[in-house]
Amino acid sequence: MQSAVGVITTKRDGGELSEAQIDWVVDAFTRGEVADEQMSALAMAILLRGMTRRETARWTAAMIASGQRMDFTDLPRPTVDKHSTGGVGDKITLPLAPLVAACGAAVPQLSGRGLGHTGGTLDKLEAIPGWQADLSVPRMREILADPRVGAVVCAAGADLAPADKRLYALRDVTGTVESIPLIASSIMSKKIAEGTGALVLDVKVGRGAFMKEFDDARELAAAMVELGTDAGVRTVALLTAMDTPLGRTAGNALEVAESVEVLAGGGPADIVELTVALAREMVAQAGITDIDPADALADGRAMDHWRAMIAAQGGDPDAPLPRAKHTEIVKAPDTGTLTRLDALDIGLAAWRLGAGRARQGDPVQAGAGIEMHAKPGDSVTAGQPLLTLHTDTPETIPAALEGLRDAFSIGSAAEFTPTPLLLDRLAH
Amino acid sequence: MQSAVGVITTKRDGGELSEAQIDWVVDAFTRGEVADEQMSALAMAILLRGMTRRETARWTAAMIASGQRMDFTDLPRPTVDKHSTGGVGDKITLPLAPLVAACGAAVPQLSGRGLGHTGGTLDKLEAIPGWQADLSVPRMREILADPRVGAVVCAAGADLAPADKRLYALRDVTGTVESIPLIASSIMSKKIAEGTGALVLDVKVGRGAFMKEFDDARELAAAMVELGTDAGVRTVALLTAMDTPLGRTAGNALEVAESVEVLAGGGPADIVELTVALAREMVAQAGITDIDPADALADGRAMDHWRAMIAAQGGDPDAPLPRAKHTEIVKAPDTGTLTRLDALDIGLAAWRLGAGRARQGDPVQAGAGIEMHAKPGDSVTAGQPLLTLHTDTPETIPAALEGLRDAFSIGSAAEFTPTPLLLDRLAH
Repeated sequence: MQSAVGVITTKRDGGELSEAQIDWVVDAFTRGEVADEQMSALAMAILLRGMTRRETARWTAAMIASGQRMDFTDLPRPTVDKHSTGGVGDKITLPLAPLVAACGAAVPQLSGRGLGHTGGTLDKLEAIPGWQADLSVPRMREILADPRVGAVVCAAGADLAPADKRLYALRDVTGTVESIPLIASSIMSKKIAEGTGALVLDVKVGRGAFMKEFDDARELAAAMVELGTDAGVRTVALLTAMDTPLGRTAGNALEVAESVEVLAGGGPADIVELTVALAREMVAQAGITDIDPADALADGRAMDHWRAMIAAQGGDPDAPLPRAKHTEIVKAPDTGTLTRLDALDIGLAAWRLGAGRARQGDPVQAGAGIEMHAKPGDSVTAGQPLLTLHTDTPETIPAALEGLRDAFSIGSAAEFTPTPLLLDRLAH
Repeated sequence: MQSAVGVITTKRDGGELSEAQIDWVVDAFTRGEVADEQMSALAMAILLRGMTRRETARWTAAMIASGQRMDFTDLPRPTVDKHSTGGVGDKITLPLAPLVAACGAAVPQLSGRGLGHTGGTLDKLEAIPGWQADLSVPRMREILADPRVGAVVCAAGADLAPADKRLYALRDVTGTVESIPLIASSIMSKKIAEGTGALVLDVKVGRGAFMKEFDDARELAAAMVELGTDAGVRTVALLTAMDTPLGRTAGNALEVAESVEVLAGGGPADIVELTVALAREMVAQAGITDIDPADALADGRAMDHWRAMIAAQGGDPDAPLPRAKHTEIVKAPDTGTLTRLDALDIGLAAWRLGAGRARQGDPVQAGAGIEMHAKPGDSVTAGQPLLTLHTDTPETIPAALEGLRDAFSIGSAAEFTPTPLLLDRLAH
């Protein structure tokens, strides 16, 4: 007979949990028989002792089994999704999902809201007047099957890996977030449960990312590729740089506007580069070989799918986006080359201005955020606008400015070293 | 500003907790601001990462500060107490407390009830008709000051290190009991808070003890001696063997009867040896040099104090002790020398028969337990009674017998190696 103390002490003492132990403890936790204080002790033991590939796969399967697993294998098109571990200015899902749909795949993305300094995809899309994150499964299936749309970005239902939801809330308050097996299984249980046939992971590395170190990010990426593969989901991971914000905006409506620029054939080079790189991986995983996403972006097909995707979820793609009531400009103090723009500092300042939330359930400001008028490598002149802060709550501006004091450096062109955006690729 | 996650992650990542962190987390836990799931994650991190001497001392002080600290420095006699980490048949407190009181010290022992296979001192004394474990502090002080008594063994009040009580209950269900710094601080916070001036620790080692390995027991003893010393309590520890039960009885009334035999000048040699050894340490720590406890045991003075001590807490030292309704004899299967009698098996069998409890608050049977008619080294003849099982619940006998199947070995005299009872001594 299993007991919570038995499972905890097995892991505490460095042992490997059996499949029966994992199945039991996750199910008993879901039923409330294993108490929060027991699960948090187990989470700390897992964080400090690790889990093997076999344990992590079973843990993930148990999380999936705590709820319903969706199935889109009957759709007329292959399904493929993307997951990013989160970065500042990371609006890539917005142009990417319609672009991949335009190439002939279906993108069934269940997404989340943001917490802390990285924004959430749903928060961004909710800046669009009328757009709704909640969809029924039949409606989701209808949109995915529609060849003019083919992509949904919606909120995960309460029945998708509910044990993971409870465990994540517990890990958040018990210092047990930073466990690679637990992070990997949390992400992958939701992605496997959402029923996608293939998955491309964008694992961020750097100052503005959850993973600050390349080796940790690579370990997380490897664990997730293994979990996807073991569960029958074709999975590939790109490791991408997150020292500098992506694009020139951080915020909700600001990032929607920038995404629309990209879909219109413009937009910042880094956003275009990453969107096309991820789209190429996704269409390849979906088995589509006759189309290059770069063409579908350039010729407007991706924009058509964007408009259809927004409209399918009640949004008006032509409506003016909300704008913040107050702005504040940060000027360049010197003339020279912008050698550094810190993603974490920008993300935290945008969060302070109201673009993000401190607690689950708090509202966010659609218009709040930061525009960046220069990116590392750009020449700047003393006195020119470097950043524009946007907020509806001007009382947040002083703290945001204070947090931006060391957010950038201006030096000589020789002091600037361009760094690649794409760092590594992992596949099974 | 302190946060639970900050304290947890400091320890999780191998750091040393600051005094401010420890004071805050213990106080916030006592007030309910730090939740059980946070404290259990911290306990697991402490178990796996350890605590330094400085951290353990501060943790102990914070546990003491969560309640009231008693003070007996105004008593006309020096105070000294003993604590045992628990063993099978360990009734030593019963003859020891009155013996030390007879030598001129005051013994203010706050004790507990048993849980699992080792009995509790209060459970044993409660087998005496009329005896009460609960005393008010003024009454406790009165008994300690009385030169004809000078010893109390009573239940700790709810205000003695309450944070430790809550933490212990949490550790019990979260696999976080086995941390030497947490065990040491749990024991020592209660002993320091009870206001004793000096303390002798009996740290048990072996099959029937909490600490199975000598090195672990020595580490625990060293940690407790350090904690006592740092808190101004003169502390010494003896490491003693617990592979074989102490004496010839395990159970409540059975152990009281055996203790009275010792006080009357008889009783098993191991009980007499350990009682006198601990008493010598205690009187030395109390600064008493003009009396050898062996004499006070031999001449009946200890028995006088026993009778006064029992009477002072409402007990009748002359009342017949309760006897169990059913007995069952285990006979020696062979002729030879008893080479082994396993303390853990005997303790578990006595517990199954009703001498102990499975959950806090459960009742125990006063008469239940096991009499041992031979001890390792004794010659036995096939068919002679080896053990007598006592219980009011005969339905427990089959499981107890089953658990005793491998509890002893009979071999040749050459196969028996006597082992010492006293293994080591640690003082500051």
